[in-house]
Amino acid sequence: MLKKKDKYIVAVVGATGAVGNEMISILKERNFPVEKLCLFASERSKGKTMEFHGTPLPVEILGEKVFKGIDIALFSAGGDRSRHFAPFAAKDGCIVVDNSSAWRMDPEVPLVVPEVNPDELKGHKGIIANPNCSTIQMVLALKPLHDAANIKRVVVTTFQSVSGTGKQAMDELLQQTSDILNFKKTEPSVYPHQIAFSCLPHIDSFMEDGYTKEEIKMVNETKKILGDDSIQITATTVRVPVFRSHSESVNIETGKKLSPEEARALLTVMPGIIVFDVPSKNLYPLPVDTVGKDEVYVGRIREDHSVKNGLNMWIVADNLRKGAALNAVQIAEELIAQIKK
Amino acid sequence: MLKKKDKYIVAVVGATGAVGNEMISILKERNFPVEKLCLFASERSKGKTMEFHGTPLPVEILGEKVFKGIDIALFSAGGDRSRHFAPFAAKDGCIVVDNSSAWRMDPEVPLVVPEVNPDELKGHKGIIANPNCSTIQMVLALKPLHDAANIKRVVVTTFQSVSGTGKQAMDELLQQTSDILNFKKTEPSVYPHQIAFSCLPHIDSFMEDGYTKEEIKMVNETKKILGDDSIQITATTVRVPVFRSHSESVNIETGKKLSPEEARALLTVMPGIIVFDVPSKNLYPLPVDTVGKDEVYVGRIREDHSVKNGLNMWIVADNLRKGAALNAVQIAEELIAQIKK
Repeated sequence: MLKKKDKYIVAVVGATGAVGNEMISILKERNFPVEKLCLFASERSKGKTMEFHGTPLPVEILGEKVFKGIDIALFSAGGDRSRHFAPFAAKDGCIVVDNSSAWRMDPEVPLVVPEVNPDELKGHKGIIANPNCSTIQMVLALKPLHDAANIKRVVVTTFQSVSGTGKQAMDELLQQTSDILNFKKTEPSVYPHQIAFSCLPHIDSFMEDGYTKEEIKMVNETKKILGDDSIQITATTVRVPVFRSHSESVNIETGKKLSPEEARALLTVMPGIIVFDVPSKNLYPLPVDTVGKDEVYVGRIREDHSVKNGLNMWIVADNLRKGAALNAVQIAEELIAQIKK
Repeated sequence: MLKKKDKYIVAVVGATGAVGNEMISILKERNFPVEKLCLFASERSKGKTMEFHGTPLPVEILGEKVFKGIDIALFSAGGDRSRHFAPFAAKDGCIVVDNSSAWRMDPEVPLVVPEVNPDELKGHKGIIANPNCSTIQMVLALKPLHDAANIKRVVVTTFQSVSGTGKQAMDELLQQTSDILNFKKTEPSVYPHQIAFSCLPHIDSFMEDGYTKEEIKMVNETKKILGDDSIQITATTVRVPVFRSHSESVNIETGKKLSPEEARALLTVMPGIIVFDVPSKNLYPLPVDTVGKDEVYVGRIREDHSVKNGLNMWIVADNLRKGAALNAVQIAEELIAQIKK
């Protein structure tokens, strides 16, 4: 539904947020073919301007009728706004790439990581969902291993940074840390408990069966993106006092035996993945080292001796980039590439 | 080999370290029957005094002949010193409870968590090993579940605090955090990489197969303490920027089906365990809440839908107390209780 053009009118919805900000940077960095960039946010950001390629742009207030003439809108404005506004955009012929969880499990909506399942884009009906941050980085590493050896089960525990919650959470970690270092009393506000110097086994809200929505997202989205409901997945998602980049301890069981060397070889040629795995030199992926990087880093690849065909891995990526803004922009790039074919 | 007495001459070896300090506090708190307390450390601590029940005590320099007349020595002075000095102590009739990894896998040495395998103490030959911190808290939670439902496999990922490394590491986390908050350049020294606002998938040294010694300890020690080599275990151990208390994401597969409710009931009556698991009220164990506590806290108990009989749990405990000093003192208490029987 996207027309073949040299340049596109692009909107960023939720432009002033942590991910929106990153989307604007990435459009610039990657020289995305932007004819005009429109920035939208809520009432709160009224009067603000932001800069793109040296030009100050006004932040406009989001509305139902703002999408006329816009080709592509990158949404990162929360589930409620996305549920409400994305259909208006789609109706006006604007393709929405949505970063919220609102549309991800809708069977009509493609859920896409461009390196993994680009062909899913072909059936889109105006709305395309960007997966959850912790899912994107995991699924990118699982894909080549699943293709080669048929992943049967995944046990994942995450170490997620506060930027996944947004700018306010980053401020809270900074303020709490400073308060504690200065012997001041500190009260949590964004999180239900202190995050500085602690770990919270709680991301998004709890469901009846004791799982958090974040854990359920990792299960369901991974199956949808890999296009295989038979993969068994269980997740424990944990918030850690890290500003940016998510880390994951991922244990997999495969149908076919895969040695660490074979896994490393498969991951090395996978687009978007960097294998960083030299334990003898203390080299393994670290959240602080992957900030601002586009790739998903995989290390600590080793045989799991507790099961017939098992592997352990440590997967780290910048949650605001590949986990959110970059993947959304890559989806838009892939849409353009597909109409050019 | 311990004589029945009202009070004992007790030594703390490595008295000035993080765990040694905690041992002295715990002996005091629990009113351990101390006739006399002797404190030993390396040359570095020469001339220091420490306080016990209001009395200043000199820190003496450790030597091969200092153990004559001492009944029980709690060692927390590192593997090398323990390997060297513990046999001298044992030869002189002093029972060593050793917190290092030096003796743990020695088939002649009992490896004991008093609530789990107290009877192993009966065969001791003068040296008793205190398990690894991350093993103690996990094994305490596994024990009643294993007895009831036969644990077949464990997949564990840890979130370990810097106090597990010692006082210098706590200082490093504090200094690095302060440096970063003040925009100063910071260099790691205790750890190979920055620990502040990061996560290091690296505890103890790396082995040939890509595992760290810490991960291998969790596997081997758990099997030895539970007295069951058939349990399959795989571990990923990670250092997090938390001062004190280790957290663990533990996934188990059992032979017999165990519902979360059954697991909660079994854990509730297990000595040394507190079930803290009300997700609807945002209640789950947190490292900052368990500092200074004796018990191991278990929460987020839920069915693992990815496997026939699976459970996920979140296990948190103060690594300096139950994970080290407290367990060592409890071993000494159990030795006394056994000779009184």
